[in-house]
Amino acid sequence: MANDKEASGGLEWRVTVPSGSSVKMESESGVISRAWTWFAGAVLMAKSTVFGFGKSVWKMGVDDPRKVIHGFKVGIALSLVSIFYYTRPLYDGVGGNAMWAVMTVVVVFEYTVGGCLYKGFNRAVATLSAGGLAVGIHWIASKTGERVEPVILSASVFLLGAAATFSRFIPTIKARFDYGITIFILTFSLVAVSGYRVDEVLDLAQQRLSTIAIGIFICLLVCILICPVWASEELHLLITRNMEKLAESLESCIKEYFMEDGDVDGTNSCSQKSQGYKCVLNSKASEDSQANLARWELAHGRFGFRHPWSQYLKVGAAMRYCAYCMEALNGCINSEIQAPKSTKKHLREVCMKLSSASSKVLKELSSSIKSMKRSQSIDFSVEEMSNAVEELHDALRSFPNQFTQEADEPAVEATEEKKHSISVTTTLPAIELLPLITVASLLIEISARIEGVVDAVHTLADLAGFDSVEKEKPLSPTHQEQQDMKAIQEV
Amino acid sequence: MANDKEASGGLEWRVTVPSGSSVKMESESGVISRAWTWFAGAVLMAKSTVFGFGKSVWKMGVDDPRKVIHGFKVGIALSLVSIFYYTRPLYDGVGGNAMWAVMTVVVVFEYTVGGCLYKGFNRAVATLSAGGLAVGIHWIASKTGERVEPVILSASVFLLGAAATFSRFIPTIKARFDYGITIFILTFSLVAVSGYRVDEVLDLAQQRLSTIAIGIFICLLVCILICPVWASEELHLLITRNMEKLAESLESCIKEYFMEDGDVDGTNSCSQKSQGYKCVLNSKASEDSQANLARWELAHGRFGFRHPWSQYLKVGAAMRYCAYCMEALNGCINSEIQAPKSTKKHLREVCMKLSSASSKVLKELSSSIKSMKRSQSIDFSVEEMSNAVEELHDALRSFPNQFTQEADEPAVEATEEKKHSISVTTTLPAIELLPLITVASLLIEISARIEGVVDAVHTLADLAGFDSVEKEKPLSPTHQEQQDMKAIQEV
Repeated sequence: MANDKEASGGLEWRVTVPSGSSVKMESESGVISRAWTWFAGAVLMAKSTVFGFGKSVWKMGVDDPRKVIHGFKVGIALSLVSIFYYTRPLYDGVGGNAMWAVMTVVVVFEYTVGGCLYKGFNRAVATLSAGGLAVGIHWIASKTGERVEPVILSASVFLLGAAATFSRFIPTIKARFDYGITIFILTFSLVAVSGYRVDEVLDLAQQRLSTIAIGIFICLLVCILICPVWASEELHLLITRNMEKLAESLESCIKEYFMEDGDVDGTNSCSQKSQGYKCVLNSKASEDSQANLARWELAHGRFGFRHPWSQYLKVGAAMRYCAYCMEALNGCINSEIQAPKSTKKHLREVCMKLSSASSKVLKELSSSIKSMKRSQSIDFSVEEMSNAVEELHDALRSFPNQFTQEADEPAVEATEEKKHSISVTTTLPAIELLPLITVASLLIEISARIEGVVDAVHTLADLAGFDSVEKEKPLSPTHQEQQDMKAIQEV
Repeated sequence: MANDKEASGGLEWRVTVPSGSSVKMESESGVISRAWTWFAGAVLMAKSTVFGFGKSVWKMGVDDPRKVIHGFKVGIALSLVSIFYYTRPLYDGVGGNAMWAVMTVVVVFEYTVGGCLYKGFNRAVATLSAGGLAVGIHWIASKTGERVEPVILSASVFLLGAAATFSRFIPTIKARFDYGITIFILTFSLVAVSGYRVDEVLDLAQQRLSTIAIGIFICLLVCILICPVWASEELHLLITRNMEKLAESLESCIKEYFMEDGDVDGTNSCSQKSQGYKCVLNSKASEDSQANLARWELAHGRFGFRHPWSQYLKVGAAMRYCAYCMEALNGCINSEIQAPKSTKKHLREVCMKLSSASSKVLKELSSSIKSMKRSQSIDFSVEEMSNAVEELHDALRSFPNQFTQEADEPAVEATEEKKHSISVTTTLPAIELLPLITVASLLIEISARIEGVVDAVHTLADLAGFDSVEKEKPLSPTHQEQQDMKAIQEV
């Protein structure tokens, strides 16, 4: 400290601050070097932040190139509109209102075809209806004289604006027409208000409509023709993928829990897989929005005109119902108190059988939805799952017996005075068995909830008219069998 | 049937359809009467639909009058803008671009102050930056000659449009600047494209800016002055309300489960209360959006400039973590297999004690957040909860003993040859006890997760600087006590 003072020429100030304590001011060179350190640090941090950000953005683009393509699609649509604007004959045709076309492209262009159709339809219908209404009210107002006219117009803007805004709180309207209502208020206000100045209200409305139509047309063209992203496909994929994740995480959760020390292979990949159910927990919002947009996509590809999108949401809800239980199961598995290995062993086989049977049911449902065909073996798999549940029940029923035989020696020690008894379990450490019993119980609950998913998928298959795989014909004897039979007859 | 035919003059057709079956055509009067029935039915249905819809809308308005008020606020803002438009001096001031003010009001006006600020700020900054950039590029392009100019302009629109659209997929940008990016693309395209025709690009940009500023100003004025709805208050309320619901539903779930036949009072209200945790499960989306908007509200009321909104989300996540377990608990409680009443009785006291202790902790946390004061008794309550957990552990440890004593007679019967033993539990019907043990185990798990909520709230209290209630002074004897002591001394 003393040396430092010497080096900087002993410069030092002391300032007495009101509270009475004194603060040492920094020496000049110290300030400069600190500022330099700070600056260098800031530059380095900014550099690493920018690089990190760039890396994550790059990764996002590589992971889902459709997002990059979407960017380019918007660029193409905008360029097409500006070409429209630059080309004089077209420009003269649609008039100075061509900016509405640009605006339409920017606002209507969405990631999915459903989003584009939803916004395009809403914009077109809202503009048309609000324009018509505004012209009508403007015409009525114009008959009432110059004094009353602005009052009528302002009152109509106030009332319609208030009513339309309130209607946005109604859930069904919010889901399907939210954007349309914004455009309705906007168009009505613009036409009603500007009508006071401009005489050619009808002309204005007609021009706006035609430019908006051009904008919507360009949007849909680019959106559908260049690598289209269908919300319906996305929803379909999301549901099947989530179902697979649920199946995998159920299986690997149980596998991890009952894993013996020897089974170290693939522990990490297991842990990652066992977290898959979390995707199901968090996917409600995206399921809802995609189902909403899928409705706008009408018939396309494998999805018919009235494809039951709401049933997909029910399947999603049934899966989430399973996932809640999986969460609790995960909590038990990672609980601090753990059953001793020897007791775990008794339930190992049955629990793993049940988990793989449950997981098999989910996987079959997933592939049934994916292929849009009824699964033939699903009833059999569900039966198998029920049997596994029964076996687990049986194992639990006989559990204390088994355990007592294992714990023979301590039990005998504890009951010194009753030497005759070999199955006294008063010292049963229930507290250590608790997580094991809970895991078993939750597994049973999960399988019951999986039956709910089965029902939801069955309903979906009925509503969407999944193809039923033709039943195999009664087995006719194979050539080999025929030969064998002949040989027997000959003998 | 025959009478019907007579009455309608015996008119009847038969048409043979390809499949070979024959279809009876309806007689004329039958068609009319059916059409009438159908029409009347349709009218009635439409009437009931309209009435039902009207009723639900009315209920929505009565339940939360702020939604109705919001509608009126939008109406007022629109009327203010149109007055602006009608008043000639003002009109001349801002020019024909006044429609931008109307547009701004329609698009920027949001339910919460945060939403309004978010959109207003985004709109202003995006318009300013995009306008500046477009003017710059337009100036550069104008120097290159008439041939290259449209190419440069189109290319810049394409590239900026694509890049900006892609950036919307980045989560942090999406959360804070989604609307701003739309406006950026819009303004840039409009200025760049229209610049080709209109020479007064700078004038256009300046006009647009001033009208947008007027629009935003009117929006904020109406939004903040008339019954403002703050997103921060909403989030604060949502979290505390959800915590209370969680506490209530935990308590009433367990109460219902252990209810004896005599306790029939208030069963219905209990069932309703016990479903409260479902609100917590489904509130992630609204928590996220409100936290996003709350950030825009800067300092206001009791919330400081850098109020830790993200910590609220963590508290919400910790609560949801409890709620997942509650879901599983609810599944066990409604399970088909139920433990016999006699065995339930053994855990009744301890389970109810634990549930009410846990619920008390949650309620205290909730009121601590609500009042933004550190709770003094929270450590004590958590201690109490831990003790209740220990008691439940003990009860479970001694559970087989207790049960065997109860089941004394059958146990003795079953072990005919070992008459000495009174505590043989080989016949313990584990399968019936399963749900009871699982309920106990989940209760313990829930209390562990509640400790996670306690930690999250502690961190919130640190970050937000909750006032700590002053520690009570070492208890000085009360007046009565002093009197008593005097009396004793005198004696």
